Amino acid sequence: MDNRPIGVFDSGLGGLTVLSKIIEEIPTESIVYFGDCGRTPYGVKSKETIVKFTFQDIKFLLNQDIKMVVIACNTVSSNSLHEVKKEFKGIHIVEVIEPGALSAVNETVNKKVGVIGTSGTINSNVYENAIKKLDDSITVYSKACPLFVPLVEEGWWDNDIALRTAEEYLLPLKEKGIDTLVLGCTHYPLIINEIKAVLPSHIKVINQGTIVAESLDNYLKRHNEIENQLGKNYNRSFYTTDTSEMFNDMAELFYGESIFSEHAEMEM
Amino acid sequence: MDNRPIGVFDSGLGGLTVLSKIIEEIPTESIVYFGDCGRTPYGVKSKETIVKFTFQDIKFLLNQDIKMVVIACNTVSSNSLHEVKKEFKGIHIVEVIEPGALSAVNETVNKKVGVIGTSGTINSNVYENAIKKLDDSITVYSKACPLFVPLVEEGWWDNDIALRTAEEYLLPLKEKGIDTLVLGCTHYPLIINEIKAVLPSHIKVINQGTIVAESLDNYLKRHNEIENQLGKNYNRSFYTTDTSEMFNDMAELFYGESIFSEHAEMEM
Repeated sequence: MDNRPIGVFDSGLGGLTVLSKIIEEIPTESIVYFGDCGRTPYGVKSKETIVKFTFQDIKFLLNQDIKMVVIACNTVSSNSLHEVKKEFKGIHIVEVIEPGALSAVNETVNKKVGVIGTSGTINSNVYENAIKKLDDSITVYSKACPLFVPLVEEGWWDNDIALRTAEEYLLPLKEKGIDTLVLGCTHYPLIINEIKAVLPSHIKVINQGTIVAESLDNYLKRHNEIENQLGKNYNRSFYTTDTSEMFNDMAELFYGESIFSEHAEMEM
Repeated sequence: MDNRPIGVFDSGLGGLTVLSKIIEEIPTESIVYFGDCGRTPYGVKSKETIVKFTFQDIKFLLNQDIKMVVIACNTVSSNSLHEVKKEFKGIHIVEVIEPGALSAVNETVNKKVGVIGTSGTINSNVYENAIKKLDDSITVYSKACPLFVPLVEEGWWDNDIALRTAEEYLLPLKEKGIDTLVLGCTHYPLIINEIKAVLPSHIKVINQGTIVAESLDNYLKRHNEIENQLGKNYNRSFYTTDTSEMFNDMAELFYGESIFSEHAEMEM
């Protein structure tokens, strides 16, 4: 039994959609969430910069005495997982790409899978590689959708602009005849209705939060030496590199309930 | 005569629209441009974080032995000018708000002025304060337009989504009967056609780049002890906190010609 917290981080707030699913699945684990809102978004930045920021983020979490790390960010997972595994040997790392890819492989019937995400995620080809590693008869069609994150942050989820933007981005994937679509960005669950509205109803839309939470639960069940069995004695702490007020104001949107965060001073 | 360069900085690439106007106006001055693309955008971050980043940016420029600083960023000007003037006494600082406000005051006839910008700029009320200080009979109507920057960066300047977004943001200002609109963000000159298309043609749209360049030229003419009179022996250097490849790829869009930048390692 290991009652230290699980560290969860994202370049900003999006990871809270993953965290809310994790908490539904394993409600008694303690959590430290870190959102790098001071430098968000990562998706428009270079791989080199993303790797550098990621190392700093994980070091921050390790200083909070966590037992494992969840990378709740597609841009980080896709740009720096290889480097992270090399740098932080011995720390168990859960990320969002592999569970998402596996779920797509299990769902697709016609072997045509669509993936959407930030430019950083899509340009890295990480989903395509992960899916093809599992089943190389699958064709993957990818599309960067850089306007979805600012649309979500503007609160424009249900207006005609969100719908037209979804249509513009998703038309090429629809035309390819995909039967499965991976939401490769933790902001996108908030705009899932618009995404579904412009796609034929038979297309299966994969929300990573649920998948990652299940995979984490499985991992803990298989390694019950690190499961927290303290029942209700858990803690949830939230840190951000922007001011905590800024974080708290927006966080409820992503997390579903209000959050009180602390400002994190990082050695950068 | 002082042939050291003028330092120009922005949270990212937008300041290059101001720089291109500066170069048209004073082509023989040497320039060091710094774009904090590794942490861009500032507009969604808190005042505290913006002030911290600004101090670091200016210190970086001072290390390049510049003779004066141009803050080519509305978010920085509006959130940290007071703090900057206190911290960096003795350095001449040119910024974008005051020249923009002055131009609006000169242009408006019906005393109703609109201002658009990032959330950081608009929430700071800086334009309203600057305009009212010059003429308190003017009413200022402000509107944050957070989707304009990602639209520009997506290259969606001339599609129906850009037009609908402009319409959505600008309708409330149009209804107030403004006769003058200040583009309070250095990205917005790239989307000026869509902005003009949804407004009645009598509304005067103020582009800061031109105004700031003129005000800088005037300053140098009044202080010819610091004017560079070396003729063609000028230098232009560009630094970014993201990788230089990332900067160079996008920069041409804003600057009008290709740029070769260097990566800046900052003591953060």
